[in-house]
Amino acid sequence: MTSSTQVQLVSRPRGWPTPEDFRTVSVELPALAPGQVRIRNEFLSVDPYMRGRMSAARSYVAPYAVGETMTGGAVGRVEESTSDDLPVGTLVVHDLGWRDVAQGDAAAFRAVAEVPGAPSSLHLGILGMTGLTAYVGLTAIAGLREGETVFVSGAAGAVGTAVGQIARLLGASTVIGSAGSAEKVALLEGKYGYDRALNYRDAPIREQLAQAAPDGIDVFFDNVGGDHLEAALAAFNDHGRAAICGAISQYNATGPVAGPDNLGNLVTRKLTLRGFIVGDHRELAGEFRERMTGWFADGRIAYDETVFEGIGNAVDAFLAMMRGANTGKMVVRL
Amino acid sequence: MTSSTQVQLVSRPRGWPTPEDFRTVSVELPALAPGQVRIRNEFLSVDPYMRGRMSAARSYVAPYAVGETMTGGAVGRVEESTSDDLPVGTLVVHDLGWRDVAQGDAAAFRAVAEVPGAPSSLHLGILGMTGLTAYVGLTAIAGLREGETVFVSGAAGAVGTAVGQIARLLGASTVIGSAGSAEKVALLEGKYGYDRALNYRDAPIREQLAQAAPDGIDVFFDNVGGDHLEAALAAFNDHGRAAICGAISQYNATGPVAGPDNLGNLVTRKLTLRGFIVGDHRELAGEFRERMTGWFADGRIAYDETVFEGIGNAVDAFLAMMRGANTGKMVVRL
Repeated sequence: MTSSTQVQLVSRPRGWPTPEDFRTVSVELPALAPGQVRIRNEFLSVDPYMRGRMSAARSYVAPYAVGETMTGGAVGRVEESTSDDLPVGTLVVHDLGWRDVAQGDAAAFRAVAEVPGAPSSLHLGILGMTGLTAYVGLTAIAGLREGETVFVSGAAGAVGTAVGQIARLLGASTVIGSAGSAEKVALLEGKYGYDRALNYRDAPIREQLAQAAPDGIDVFFDNVGGDHLEAALAAFNDHGRAAICGAISQYNATGPVAGPDNLGNLVTRKLTLRGFIVGDHRELAGEFRERMTGWFADGRIAYDETVFEGIGNAVDAFLAMMRGANTGKMVVRL
Repeated sequence: MTSSTQVQLVSRPRGWPTPEDFRTVSVELPALAPGQVRIRNEFLSVDPYMRGRMSAARSYVAPYAVGETMTGGAVGRVEESTSDDLPVGTLVVHDLGWRDVAQGDAAAFRAVAEVPGAPSSLHLGILGMTGLTAYVGLTAIAGLREGETVFVSGAAGAVGTAVGQIARLLGASTVIGSAGSAEKVALLEGKYGYDRALNYRDAPIREQLAQAAPDGIDVFFDNVGGDHLEAALAAFNDHGRAAICGAISQYNATGPVAGPDNLGNLVTRKLTLRGFIVGDHRELAGEFRERMTGWFADGRIAYDETVFEGIGNAVDAFLAMMRGANTGKMVVRL
């Protein structure tokens, strides 16, 4: 019999989650029914959106159930199969989350192509949902046009490092990013081709952005919210568009947070703020994969991963990611 | 020689404008050059956007120049002409604003059709820019679809009374509006066909809207901003869209005003907030005029006007409009 080690949510955190909000259990798995597969996971994804699901509040996906295993992105290989669609050895991604072994009907898993030179974890990052999120935000949501200036908040994160590169490949003239350390700023300007990177801990981001973009910004890709959204509203040119992907600065707030003090610019500059989740735009996945695979093969895509080892560190990895300890995508290797 | 009585801005108001910020002057007009017309104005328009232009801050139109005549919408008749395009007697609209007599090149004036049963002032209101603003906001900006629920702030104002009626004619299933008095609420539910009207002075608008729209709202047409925007953000269904036309609650603020505390809903509900000005959408003017003229002829359009008499009351009319003393469009009759 095979057992699966799984991490479950046992209480809804108020403010910052703590290790006590989770427990690790071992589950005995039944034999496969016809048409099922068993997956040995290689990497688990930890993502900011998971914080929202830990609360009971209405959100774009249902809250996590207390007492059940944390779901989320994972990549692994078929080690046993009763499905012709997914033979043993197939690399798959799925949403069954924080467990070392996952099993179920083959339809719950999606085979992904092996990409030369790419570790399988990239299917959780730049080649997967993270990269698609960046692509959807810049194209379908913000309508980036050639020659425009783009500002990215949380630019050294998983999505942010993808946004900067894709913006450039789509023809942005200037790409400016924010991050929370001198090391990340150096990385953005060096490895990721940002024209300017701003350390938001050095001075108010609104002042820094005004100086870095004296001719204004056209597109804002927001992962942070709060003071960053306010800074963008102040810097927007007429007809500026914001793709609002997240607001990590506010996910652990325990009460209402005042919004930006300059929303009046929405009218005077004819701005659009548009929130989105990647799951609503799966029709772009094929186009994205084709373009991204080409860019990757041409050596035009850089990436970083921050890797925590072992399922016992999944909670620590999640909390470290929420604190901004990662550069690029945070994953847990099993 | 003809003289023109004109109202000029003499100082930039801080907070609420006062009569001392304006002066009335008499200007002697030269004889017409070839291709020019002289217009005897019948009605002047006073509009919320004018408050923004009285400040020096960047906006979608240049600030008013201190010491010059207030510009803005007006309607009048050609009383002298050296242009074949605009013979004497033609009804025209123009943007030369607060003066009893306007003259200049014929290109600065646009002939409008006489509409049976409509006073010429309606070309400043429901048949003119005000109606077009409502139409553009509901169609091009918010993308209203049949069967959707619409919330309109400032619903008893010039734009608001147009929005409610047009929303219904475009197929909205439920139209909810807010206003600042019991009389206006009664008018909205009676004359203007709103399903529900809320008096924002009775209780927090956020609570009232939640009760009035238990199944949520899909489209928000905002003239007010502040607590009304916050209420809409709380009530939006997934993929809700806001057409942000104005924020009259904040135009006379003397400092920054905190934004809504629930902008996080932008992402979780995948919302779009879009500011606009009607001047960017003149390509819809022909379509609007055709449809609105038909609705009007069919007796399907109600309207109110609040009329102040005489150019000497233009400033008072403007201030009364800013305080919400008008029902429907506020105009000055000359």
